[in-house]
Amino acid sequence: MKYFRPNIRSMQPYAPGEQPQNGGFIKLNTNENPYPPCREVIEAMRAAVNDSLRLYPDPAAMRVREQAARVYGVDPDMVIAGNGSDDILTIIMRCFAGEGGKVVALSPSYGLYEVLAKIQNAAFHPVQYTEDFRLPDAVHQPDAKLTFICSPNNPTGTVTPVEEVADLAARSEGIVAVDEAYVDFAERSCIDLVHRFDNVIVLRSLSKSYSLAGLRIGLGIASAPLIGGMLNVKDSYNLDRLAIVGAEAALANVDQMRTNAENICRDRRYLAGELAKLRFSVLPSQANFVFARPPMDAATLYARLKERGILVRYWNKPRLADGVRISIGTRQEIDALLEAVRRILDKAE
Amino acid sequence: MKYFRPNIRSMQPYAPGEQPQNGGFIKLNTNENPYPPCREVIEAMRAAVNDSLRLYPDPAAMRVREQAARVYGVDPDMVIAGNGSDDILTIIMRCFAGEGGKVVALSPSYGLYEVLAKIQNAAFHPVQYTEDFRLPDAVHQPDAKLTFICSPNNPTGTVTPVEEVADLAARSEGIVAVDEAYVDFAERSCIDLVHRFDNVIVLRSLSKSYSLAGLRIGLGIASAPLIGGMLNVKDSYNLDRLAIVGAEAALANVDQMRTNAENICRDRRYLAGELAKLRFSVLPSQANFVFARPPMDAATLYARLKERGILVRYWNKPRLADGVRISIGTRQEIDALLEAVRRILDKAE
Repeated sequence: MKYFRPNIRSMQPYAPGEQPQNGGFIKLNTNENPYPPCREVIEAMRAAVNDSLRLYPDPAAMRVREQAARVYGVDPDMVIAGNGSDDILTIIMRCFAGEGGKVVALSPSYGLYEVLAKIQNAAFHPVQYTEDFRLPDAVHQPDAKLTFICSPNNPTGTVTPVEEVADLAARSEGIVAVDEAYVDFAERSCIDLVHRFDNVIVLRSLSKSYSLAGLRIGLGIASAPLIGGMLNVKDSYNLDRLAIVGAEAALANVDQMRTNAENICRDRRYLAGELAKLRFSVLPSQANFVFARPPMDAATLYARLKERGILVRYWNKPRLADGVRISIGTRQEIDALLEAVRRILDKAE
Repeated sequence: MKYFRPNIRSMQPYAPGEQPQNGGFIKLNTNENPYPPCREVIEAMRAAVNDSLRLYPDPAAMRVREQAARVYGVDPDMVIAGNGSDDILTIIMRCFAGEGGKVVALSPSYGLYEVLAKIQNAAFHPVQYTEDFRLPDAVHQPDAKLTFICSPNNPTGTVTPVEEVADLAARSEGIVAVDEAYVDFAERSCIDLVHRFDNVIVLRSLSKSYSLAGLRIGLGIASAPLIGGMLNVKDSYNLDRLAIVGAEAALANVDQMRTNAENICRDRRYLAGELAKLRFSVLPSQANFVFARPPMDAATLYARLKERGILVRYWNKPRLADGVRISIGTRQEIDALLEAVRRILDKAE
C-alpha cells in the first residue's frame, strides 16, 4: 500500500508460535513455563486490580528497577523495564541503528532481530554460527552499530561462552546486546559484563523462568549512560500498573523461580535422553527447550504431532528445517509427547 | 554517548506530567478520570489474575478488536490494539515516516508527536494553529508523509471540525492520524472518515473516558489495508493478558463510560464558568480538562497550587506559558481547586 515506507511494504512480519485460544493442545511450542507463577505474584496483582487503575502508572517503574537491581547486583539506574523484552529490543534498535546502519546477528537465531532491523530500514547482516554453534570470526564487524547475541540461543538452546562475548564487546565499536531470555536455565550469565564494558546490554525476560509470559516483562541491564539514553526513547508508560506490581513481586521471590528452573533442567535432560534413544540428534541445550532432529522428516513429525494435539515449533529455514524445537513441559506432557513420537515413528517405518 | 544515533543524542525526551508515587495530592495534572473503572472491568480482571499468566497472550488481541469493532461500527480487521495509544502513535511513525520524511503536527499540541519524529529522525514540521485554534492553510503540506491532528486538542481542549479533517485527508497524499484520545467528552468524532478515506487513522484511548490510564489500552481504527501493515510492525505480544480482558470488558460497558463522561462535561462547564468569574480566560474545551489563562502569572499559580497540594499542568512554551491545564476532577476536587485559586489571587493582589 503506497502510504507505507518501502521497507515496511516489503517486510515479512515476525511470526510468533501458534497460540490457539480455545485450549485442548499440549503446548510445547512457545517455551512457556509449565509451572504457575508464584502465589505472591498472584496475590499482589489481585490486590492491585482496584480503582487505582484509573491512574497512570509510574513512568519510571522504579519499584521494578530497584527490585531488579537487587537481584542482578547493579544500581537501579542500570536497569530499564520493558513491555516484554521485545519492547527492549525495539528500543535498542531505535537508539543505536539508523537507516542503513549495520546490524549483526547470528543465524539461526531469534527471528525478531531481523524483523526489527527491517522495520528500522537498517542493514541487517546475518552471520552463520559455526557447525557446533560457536561464534564465527565473521561476527566481528568493526562497523556494526549493533550486534545481537542470543545465549542460550533460540531456537538451538546452545550457549556462547561469556569469554567470547567479552572478546566481542572489547573488539566492537558498537553495542553488543546479549539476549538472555533463557539464561535462568543455563550455567552462566553475561550479566557481569555490564560492569566491564560500557557497550554491553544484557536482556532478561520474566516470561519463561518466572512463568509470566502473559504479563510481558522484560529488563535491560547496562551502564547507566546507556540506560539513560534508552529511557528517553521508551514510551512513557510502557509498563502498566499491574505489570509493575507483578514484576516486583516476581523478582522478590527468586527462590521459587530457581526451584522451577531446576525441575525444568532435570526434565530437559530426561527428554533429551529419551529422544536420543529414539534416534533423534539433540543439540546440547541450556534453555527450557531442546532442538532435536528426528530420524524422519521434521515437517511431517510436526504435522503428525499437531494432529495428535501436541504443538511443537517447526521452521522451514536453513539449518532448522531438519528439526523441531520442543519446550520442556511437565513430566506428564513430556511423556505424552514421547509416546506420540514413538507411535509416529512406528508408522513412519 | 557515542553509541547513540545523533538524533537520539540530541533529543529532548517527552516529559509526562508529575506522577507522585506517595499520594497526598489532588491530581488535576494528567487528565485522569476521577471516577473508578466499571465493576465489570475490575471483576473480569480479578478473575483473570490466575495461573494462565504463564501463557502468552493472544498476539492478535482478537477479543479486544472484535468488541471495539462493535462499538465503533467497523470490521475487526479495521482495528489495531496498542499498549496505550502512545504505542499506536509509535507504530504509525515507524510505518509511514522514514529518516527525513516530513511529519506535520499542529502547535501547540501533544508533545509526543515531535518526540517520536525526532526518535525516527524524521523531519518534524510544526504548524501554528490559527488565533482561535483552527487549522491554518499551512497544514496542507503535499509532501507530508504523516500529519497529526489532535482533536479535542491536548492541551487546549479545542476541536477541529470533522469537515476540516475530511478536507485535509482529501488533499493529502500521506497519512492523516486523528488522535481522539479525548473525543468521548466531545460532540463529534472523525471515526466515520475511516470509511471515506483510505489514508485516515483514528486513535482512541481507554485511559481517560474509560478510567483505565493504569492499564494502557489504545486503539487505532482505519481501512483494513492500513491496519494490516501496522499489525506487521507492532510487537507480537504488545497487550498482556489482563489488558486484553480489561479492554474487552470496558468496551462491553460503554453506557457507564458515557454516564461518567456526561458528569465530567457538566463539571467542566461548572469549572469554566467559575474560573471566568475569577477573571480567567478559558478556552472552549470539549475534553476532560480546560486550558485557562489566569489573571496572574501562570507559572506562579502552578507553583502556589502545588504548595497547597493541588497539581495542575504548566508548560513554559509559546502560547501555553500564560495558562495552566486543569483536569476535571470530582466536584469536591474542583471546589478545592477553586478555593485555593481564590486565596492565591487574593494574596497576589
